[in-house]
Amino acid sequence: MLRKNYIMAPGPTPVPADILLAGAKETIHHRTPQFLEIMKETLESAKYLFQTNSKIYTFVSSGTGAMEAAVTNLMNPGEKAIVVVAGKFGERWKEICDSYGIQVVEIAVEWGNAVSPEQIENVMKQHPDARVIFTTHSETSTGTVIDLKSIAQLTKDTDHVLVTDEVSGLLAEPLKMDEWGVDVVVSGSQKGIMMPPGLAFMALSEKAWKLVEKNQCPKYYFDLRYYDKNYPDNPWTPAVNMIYMLNQSIKMIKEEGIENVWERHRILGEATRNAMRALNLELFSKRPGNVVTAVKVPESIDGKKLVKIIRDKYGVTIAGGQGHLSGKIFRVAHLGYVSMFDTITAISALEFTLSELGYKIELGTGVRAAMETLKREGVAG
Amino acid sequence: MLRKNYIMAPGPTPVPADILLAGAKETIHHRTPQFLEIMKETLESAKYLFQTNSKIYTFVSSGTGAMEAAVTNLMNPGEKAIVVVAGKFGERWKEICDSYGIQVVEIAVEWGNAVSPEQIENVMKQHPDARVIFTTHSETSTGTVIDLKSIAQLTKDTDHVLVTDEVSGLLAEPLKMDEWGVDVVVSGSQKGIMMPPGLAFMALSEKAWKLVEKNQCPKYYFDLRYYDKNYPDNPWTPAVNMIYMLNQSIKMIKEEGIENVWERHRILGEATRNAMRALNLELFSKRPGNVVTAVKVPESIDGKKLVKIIRDKYGVTIAGGQGHLSGKIFRVAHLGYVSMFDTITAISALEFTLSELGYKIELGTGVRAAMETLKREGVAG
Repeated sequence: MLRKNYIMAPGPTPVPADILLAGAKETIHHRTPQFLEIMKETLESAKYLFQTNSKIYTFVSSGTGAMEAAVTNLMNPGEKAIVVVAGKFGERWKEICDSYGIQVVEIAVEWGNAVSPEQIENVMKQHPDARVIFTTHSETSTGTVIDLKSIAQLTKDTDHVLVTDEVSGLLAEPLKMDEWGVDVVVSGSQKGIMMPPGLAFMALSEKAWKLVEKNQCPKYYFDLRYYDKNYPDNPWTPAVNMIYMLNQSIKMIKEEGIENVWERHRILGEATRNAMRALNLELFSKRPGNVVTAVKVPESIDGKKLVKIIRDKYGVTIAGGQGHLSGKIFRVAHLGYVSMFDTITAISALEFTLSELGYKIELGTGVRAAMETLKREGVAG
Repeated sequence: MLRKNYIMAPGPTPVPADILLAGAKETIHHRTPQFLEIMKETLESAKYLFQTNSKIYTFVSSGTGAMEAAVTNLMNPGEKAIVVVAGKFGERWKEICDSYGIQVVEIAVEWGNAVSPEQIENVMKQHPDARVIFTTHSETSTGTVIDLKSIAQLTKDTDHVLVTDEVSGLLAEPLKMDEWGVDVVVSGSQKGIMMPPGLAFMALSEKAWKLVEKNQCPKYYFDLRYYDKNYPDNPWTPAVNMIYMLNQSIKMIKEEGIENVWERHRILGEATRNAMRALNLELFSKRPGNVVTAVKVPESIDGKKLVKIIRDKYGVTIAGGQGHLSGKIFRVAHLGYVSMFDTITAISALEFTLSELGYKIELGTGVRAAMETLKREGVAG
């Protein structure tokens, strides 16, 4: 049977045709008033995505590059950082800190759990010399969201700097950077922003910028002082056509409205979770988020085979488990340019795959639960 | 909620990105060896779509233009033609004949029924001076398919010329032009061929060509003798970029395999019909085809509102009824570049819409029936 491709992984996510077409426009020179004007307009309107009045810096890099930029612009070698590690992307913060000789005070959280504000508060008290806290709003590896708003309450009126990895979380989980008092946000293009991979973002509060000014960590490409000097002009060559795409993406997000985007992710997450429950599948996360739903692979099923069949036979790309969860969970995303019918597609393909692997279900059970959720939420039926 | 567009109407149908990209390539001049080479290769490989060894003529026109070409190249004013009228597109044959002063021997079939080979045989006997028979393989307005293979048996070894409108039927319903002995086939680009509208096709048997040679019907643009003179070069300006698209389309159809394409349409048609039955909806056609499923609108429902809501709220474009069936039926296509998940999308959107209009269903009932069909047919689960 004809196989179309459906990306239901937590990044890259489906890219709308209008964004692809924006990226197919003529490449112009980046040191021209014409491009500078586009850059200015784009970065000004990008503030909306982060709900901030701060500048938005863009890097030609993956999200990991922006994470490194956060570490090397805020921390000096030998200094202490508080790092929450509750999955693969918490580990990444730790690995970057390690690479630059930064002392890591690790808050190790069992994968699938969310760090509590109390845990962070305790560690802040135990290590008063650790001023920067690295968190992961949406831990993609476990499908877990933390209570970032409450955590920001702890740091807002102190001289602590709260950094959050929003690579997968941005636009899928509510974030009000300025209102909540989150100091540093990093993100990437290929998630909620609905673009192909290749562009990363960073926004900083004034409090965070003070650390940048006097920072002495060895760095060059990601040194924010270069990016700030002629802002919004880039210090190095910007990815011209990706800026076109970003411009188009922001227009589409503004048109939908950020609250509606957040709400859509919440509803599709809820529909997916209810479908999994109806199929007698167990969610992996204790505090599931709306980026991706992580599900335990039933005992009788080969988890790697499941991910392979649903991709190669049905064209639906979902994610398997990372690290020690490889083969033990699968993850169905509802991130970015995803409609209710994409979610229904993913669930029906999952049902076919489970059935094929011998898991006992009545076909349509998960889809029905999702459809009922969509009706209950008032968006369909 | 975010609304993506799903074209589930019997044309235009969804266009694959690879075909759109082929159409976005540089327009070259049409009177060059480079373009002639493309034309030659494309029209040679297009024979596969029709399962013929005859030349494939292309017109820059809609399918209606190719229908007119069939009439004006085969018939002279005052001559008798047998025309099967069982819906909107049978009527179109009649209207074209009327426009050129051709005497129509109409076989009027109730809409939703299929003409039988016996009916045609009888009329052939009653009107031995009527040599050309105009049929509609797939009557899109009623979702009905005729038994073209058996009808061709009646004309194959006679001097009758059998013409069939394959505008919607081509690739969705099996057709073996040469093997069956169908004399003239006309089609359009925006249906099974998975292209945008704008290109039409015609293929003729040697027997039919003899009528063309001595034809005296007034015509110019559609005069096949001009098209044949420097074939495959076009007499007028060809739609250069549509030829690129056609080339890509044929490649994709060959890759899937025409038997698989036919089989996919059959299975998706079956899944759609079973979904409708599970929802207690009545099929309109007595002999439903695999292009489009026509369904009677339940008494309690406003049929025009149904088509409007499913399109404007859910982004799923289906078709309403045409002519006297307006508001009385709706038509869900499974034509062209349609996957099993597109069909599931259409059915779930239909369920939401019916539910919203007060029709009593348990959500997921139609989807389940479709999924079970797909499993039973051995293509899923």
